[in-house]
Amino acid sequence: MPAGEFDFIDWICSQHLPSAGIVIPPGDDLAAIRWADDLLLVGVDQVLDGVHFNSAIHTPRRIGRKVINRNLSDCAAMAALPAGAVATVALPRDVGLDYAKALYLGLREGGDAFDCPVIGGDTASWDGKLVLTVAILGKSAGITPITRKGAKPGDCIHVTGALGGSILGRHMDFVPRIREARELAKTGRITAMIDVSDGLSRDMRHICQQSGVGAIIEADAIPIHADAARMNDALSPLEHALHDGEDHELLFTAAPGANIPYPRIGQITAEPGILIRQNGVLTPLAPRGWEHRL
Amino acid sequence: MPAGEFDFIDWICSQHLPSAGIVIPPGDDLAAIRWADDLLLVGVDQVLDGVHFNSAIHTPRRIGRKVINRNLSDCAAMAALPAGAVATVALPRDVGLDYAKALYLGLREGGDAFDCPVIGGDTASWDGKLVLTVAILGKSAGITPITRKGAKPGDCIHVTGALGGSILGRHMDFVPRIREARELAKTGRITAMIDVSDGLSRDMRHICQQSGVGAIIEADAIPIHADAARMNDALSPLEHALHDGEDHELLFTAAPGANIPYPRIGQITAEPGILIRQNGVLTPLAPRGWEHRL
Repeated sequence: MPAGEFDFIDWICSQHLPSAGIVIPPGDDLAAIRWADDLLLVGVDQVLDGVHFNSAIHTPRRIGRKVINRNLSDCAAMAALPAGAVATVALPRDVGLDYAKALYLGLREGGDAFDCPVIGGDTASWDGKLVLTVAILGKSAGITPITRKGAKPGDCIHVTGALGGSILGRHMDFVPRIREARELAKTGRITAMIDVSDGLSRDMRHICQQSGVGAIIEADAIPIHADAARMNDALSPLEHALHDGEDHELLFTAAPGANIPYPRIGQITAEPGILIRQNGVLTPLAPRGWEHRL
Repeated sequence: MPAGEFDFIDWICSQHLPSAGIVIPPGDDLAAIRWADDLLLVGVDQVLDGVHFNSAIHTPRRIGRKVINRNLSDCAAMAALPAGAVATVALPRDVGLDYAKALYLGLREGGDAFDCPVIGGDTASWDGKLVLTVAILGKSAGITPITRKGAKPGDCIHVTGALGGSILGRHMDFVPRIREARELAKTGRITAMIDVSDGLSRDMRHICQQSGVGAIIEADAIPIHADAARMNDALSPLEHALHDGEDHELLFTAAPGANIPYPRIGQITAEPGILIRQNGVLTPLAPRGWEHRL
């Protein structure tokens, strides 16, 4: 007899470790967390077979880890501390209990790395493709969240790591920059922040639009990942670093003179629009990162 | 040119009404709510095309409303007050911006009815079928949440409304019993509660298993919906009322002697197992409600 969702749910509940803050553990209609007087940050992300992963190539454990890491990276983008997550999974029929367990263990692996328990979820099976979602809760825990809105003319633009070519594998295995974000935010000098999920050109645009500013990017200063060169296609390594998505490094702006231990790749301008300087020449940098068509 | 996810996101952000508690509105990596010292209840639910709705029959507005109402019904099951929701949508390619907007307006319609703002989300398109998820946040707001765990021998079993045949349409259009749940919980006499999503026979079992008790259900006392008779198939109306899912009425237990304005359909027993009394004869009531096979 094939297993059913309730076998899976019973198993998940057996995997839950008691935790001080979890007042009602998984297994009821909702879970409950004791929440002190604080901001509650919340977001949600999904991964779809054939879009964000390929179930023919990637193991369920990696897939589960990716979806929660996307959410943890959203916490990093705001300098929030993860507090808990809930997940849904839509399983292709007859995928089996072991496959479902491996997805959960991937979620757990990602969450455990940042003390973020998985406290609820919903399981269904269907004749469609695999879909996972995670909604995440974060706390400010003493650090004012960094939004996309605060960049000011003269601020320096930085990125926490090398970009480009994540499709070769890093998009499945990145490390959310939560610790880095908390350290940065503690300086009080970070004015806007985002994680590079849609691509540098597009994510820079999100910051500029929401902050009502523009930017000049220095092409020579962008840290380009070795994977960008390994792509070996019609685009240059720089183009990959500018436009590829899912690097999940932090892109942020800092007040001038701040002591920032990450590469400075440009400067915020009062004039709207994003320009890139290459060989001394300024040209507009159009967003070419990933966008879902409706 | 077809619309993109950022056109949709810009439109959604334009639809957001400022609200006192929302410190960071939709449009950043995470939204933020000011949260007083209280319990935070959290859960998540999904709806899948061909399983929970049929996109060839149901309008996007009804589909959007259904997914948030499932979550609001989870709040009802715990007697929690909804505080906010985040949603994901995986759109079949080329479905169009108007379709996506109608899904959102359905979410809003459901949320607005219970002062539950939609404060974040994620949009993607793919060559798969339509999937929506909602994660919901609830507060206890002065009322201790009711779990599935507290039923005691001698407690009376009640249900807030008629059951069976929801597939004829009510599964798309039910009203979450949040007000009813809060009123019931205020009496201090409700010992366990769940919403009937998997079917009475299965949801009763959830309460009994988690409470470590059994139950006797009185067949004659079960309120049977007219839709159960309209099903006109091999199952009797009673069987539909016992096993059909997605009624989303509240199934709860109350201490003996409590003044409960809803039908009493049975009693909790110390002996494990669920029995049904019909024409004076007690027989085991096996769970036959919906279960996803893995």
